[in-house]
Amino acid sequence: MFGYMDRCMGAVWGSGWALPAGGEGKVLEHSERSSFLPGLCSSSALPPSQPGSLALSCTLHRLPGAVTPTHSLQVLPSARCCPLAPAKPRQAMEGEPTLRLRIFDLNCWAIRYLSKRRQERVRLIGDTLRREGFDLVLLQEVWSEQDYSDLRVKLAGCYPFSHYFRSGVIGSGLCVFSRFPILDTLLYQYSLNGYPYMLQHGDWFCGKSVGLVIIKISGIIFNVYVTHLHAEYCREKDAYLPHRLVQAWELAQFIRHTSKAADVVLLGGDLNMHPEDVGIRLLRGWTGLRDAFAEAMRFEGCKNGCTLVPDNCFIDKSELLPFPLGIRIDYILYKAISSFTVKCEELKTTTGPALGTDIPFSDHEAVMATLHIQRRGQPVGAALGAADLALADVVTEARTEVGVGLQAAQRQRYSSGRMAVLALLLLLLQAAAALGILAGLGTEQPFPKLSFCLLAFLALGVLVLATGLHLFHTMEVKMLHGTKDQMGMALRALQERPSEG
Amino acid sequence: MFGYMDRCMGAVWGSGWALPAGGEGKVLEHSERSSFLPGLCSSSALPPSQPGSLALSCTLHRLPGAVTPTHSLQVLPSARCCPLAPAKPRQAMEGEPTLRLRIFDLNCWAIRYLSKRRQERVRLIGDTLRREGFDLVLLQEVWSEQDYSDLRVKLAGCYPFSHYFRSGVIGSGLCVFSRFPILDTLLYQYSLNGYPYMLQHGDWFCGKSVGLVIIKISGIIFNVYVTHLHAEYCREKDAYLPHRLVQAWELAQFIRHTSKAADVVLLGGDLNMHPEDVGIRLLRGWTGLRDAFAEAMRFEGCKNGCTLVPDNCFIDKSELLPFPLGIRIDYILYKAISSFTVKCEELKTTTGPALGTDIPFSDHEAVMATLHIQRRGQPVGAALGAADLALADVVTEARTEVGVGLQAAQRQRYSSGRMAVLALLLLLLQAAAALGILAGLGTEQPFPKLSFCLLAFLALGVLVLATGLHLFHTMEVKMLHGTKDQMGMALRALQERPSEG
Repeated sequence: MFGYMDRCMGAVWGSGWALPAGGEGKVLEHSERSSFLPGLCSSSALPPSQPGSLALSCTLHRLPGAVTPTHSLQVLPSARCCPLAPAKPRQAMEGEPTLRLRIFDLNCWAIRYLSKRRQERVRLIGDTLRREGFDLVLLQEVWSEQDYSDLRVKLAGCYPFSHYFRSGVIGSGLCVFSRFPILDTLLYQYSLNGYPYMLQHGDWFCGKSVGLVIIKISGIIFNVYVTHLHAEYCREKDAYLPHRLVQAWELAQFIRHTSKAADVVLLGGDLNMHPEDVGIRLLRGWTGLRDAFAEAMRFEGCKNGCTLVPDNCFIDKSELLPFPLGIRIDYILYKAISSFTVKCEELKTTTGPALGTDIPFSDHEAVMATLHIQRRGQPVGAALGAADLALADVVTEARTEVGVGLQAAQRQRYSSGRMAVLALLLLLLQAAAALGILAGLGTEQPFPKLSFCLLAFLALGVLVLATGLHLFHTMEVKMLHGTKDQMGMALRALQERPSEG
Repeated sequence: MFGYMDRCMGAVWGSGWALPAGGEGKVLEHSERSSFLPGLCSSSALPPSQPGSLALSCTLHRLPGAVTPTHSLQVLPSARCCPLAPAKPRQAMEGEPTLRLRIFDLNCWAIRYLSKRRQERVRLIGDTLRREGFDLVLLQEVWSEQDYSDLRVKLAGCYPFSHYFRSGVIGSGLCVFSRFPILDTLLYQYSLNGYPYMLQHGDWFCGKSVGLVIIKISGIIFNVYVTHLHAEYCREKDAYLPHRLVQAWELAQFIRHTSKAADVVLLGGDLNMHPEDVGIRLLRGWTGLRDAFAEAMRFEGCKNGCTLVPDNCFIDKSELLPFPLGIRIDYILYKAISSFTVKCEELKTTTGPALGTDIPFSDHEAVMATLHIQRRGQPVGAALGAADLALADVVTEARTEVGVGLQAAQRQRYSSGRMAVLALLLLLLQAAAALGILAGLGTEQPFPKLSFCLLAFLALGVLVLATGLHLFHTMEVKMLHGTKDQMGMALRALQERPSEG
């Protein structure tokens, strides 16, 4: 028998973990789901005499059909427990308990009025999440706040903590449900995200972002990031590659700068990149994040871990013709920063229709990871050293692509600027002609009045649009230029490092 | 005699500080400017036998007219010194050396084609910075990249490290010059920053942001933030208050989340807020930053530390009528995070025309702080506890203002949406009428052709504009809503904390 934190602001956990001093607890219920490896916990874990610990009284009863028949207690310390008070774990030792975390990640494809059978699917997702009881749920493409609210109401019992990230015109589509208290959140909106005039793609209107939620479980600080990068509409001629690379870079930089006080970093989301793409290599190399699929001890699901598969009934099969098995673009990545190790015990993807229905959750398959987090004796330094040279190559490659995008953006800025100037000249010419007529210089009008007016309106329209485009591409140039510079700075730092030793 | 790091990637400093192992150094020059308190340093500071230290040989000569007659050495370790290698300070002890840092902050008002005597002033700023030799220079409103490049070339000798933050259409205007290596940078663009149709104010086009540069001096990690918030055009009816509050909140959140590995946090910039305004109280309360003006042991400059004064020849005196002494809106804020203390020894502002000229640097006065940073025995926890209740009041006040902004944005979103729908209806009506005429239903046209066309174009124009406005205000609503929620979350955390003890 052992206790762990759930729906609470403090932390209590088997051997070596205690509620912060002053915390009060109440046993709420017993459940068969356990977040901790049973072998490493003992009944002597919570001596009631220990300062800051709490006396437990509970009734144990076994639920039928439980998957992991280990005994756990859900303990609810009162709200008087401090959300920010550090729960100090005991000194590292042999047989340190392992925290098991089950994560669910899915691009829900829940676009109001456009996605097929949306409400039915959102209901299905909610039912499954409630039944399965993950620890952490990371969702993308929940574009409608109503869908989020419905999910929140449905999941309030098993995921009492949640956050929806608002951004852009439509929304970021990102939300998180958690069994553990969310201490803080932060949103970083990517500086580049497609073009507002590409209405058929619509990425610009979503304000694509990365959301950060900070969660503390048994005194371990988790920085959990959820994101959705710009879609790839044509792999052969990917006009959005520079933008997606800027996003991957900003994501990596944001994670690096905000995760310094974290023990464990988790990233889940639809990265819209294949595993071998430069963007994902850049992200993994620059942050040191590891791919749960590549590291998993056990895997179950679509072949090669694909998350966009031709068998999915919502998928346009012609789009996946070059990839008969499908593609893997949804990821769970992780790393331990301080004196912890993280291992991926199991990775699963869904495979087609959800249990008891004829439809899948979404046009994407869900990714589900079971991670083991264990404290170890010595803190580890950055493990980047040896891989620096390879990383420098990746940064160089990404920088070249961003440079290509920069040139394209500069051309577009130039041509839209020229168009605006031409339209302005035409307007001025017409104004001069009109003034001339008014002043009686010309005896009669050279054009019919209607054509003259239409032309003026046309010129005005072109002027407004071209000016808008020019401004937009100026911003694009600035951001691409800034990213290229930052990557250059990173490259110099990387190239200087190896000569050290 | 003692050495300190300058223009180098490693760190060397009097008693208790050494170059990282493997670092190589070369004495470059001797200067009278010292970044360290002379009393705390000794000639035995750098025993050449110490592992990782370096042998020094130098010629001391005293420059005439030096202000601080202390002897210092500029030491240049070779590029082989690692920019990221930790320079470990010795254990804390009595008489621990103090690092003295001189910071210069100025809103340069360098708008191309608009700011008066811009080039002359930028030259003047460059000359002064070169002559005075600050450690860190934080500039705002350097809108032209050419001005930045000119400054960089001029200052390459004394400030070898610099960064320009690109953003928005015009640029963020932010740049940093440093005598110490910049290890990394990050830009966070505020989600709200005025309105694109307020051309006369132009803030939207600047992509206002906060820039972060990470600097390591003698093993101490400095997170240096530079920012410029939305201007206040009318204090009585400040339409931009909610936007500025969102910016202040995002700035505070960005600092909190990115500074967790820092030893010292510095923020400089034009915050466009008076010292007693809710935004600055929110920023200071939520981050724990201290105001150099309030903390300074000595002050010299404009009365009350004002940085926008009626005496300035570039200032429109009528704007400052309610404030005969001027206003203080430019700040240097700081705090120590880990086991350091920071004290402000001296704060100065410029007062009118620069030395030997008839013009001031800018329409703002510069702020110059001399900070003392000292390691102390015990790390300090967050010193917020006692002030939690007061902070909760500030967050509540800010949240109310954001709520007022949210209501206004919702009204604007509604009215622009209604306008777009009306324009669309008019267009459809006209299209129906035109089709009717084409189909021969009407025998003759009810309007003259020209008026009909003009009306159609007018409707089209209104439709496009109103749709654009509607989208913009939708984004505004989302961001205000998100910030209000975040503040609510912060408030709950604050209100739960005091009952703990």
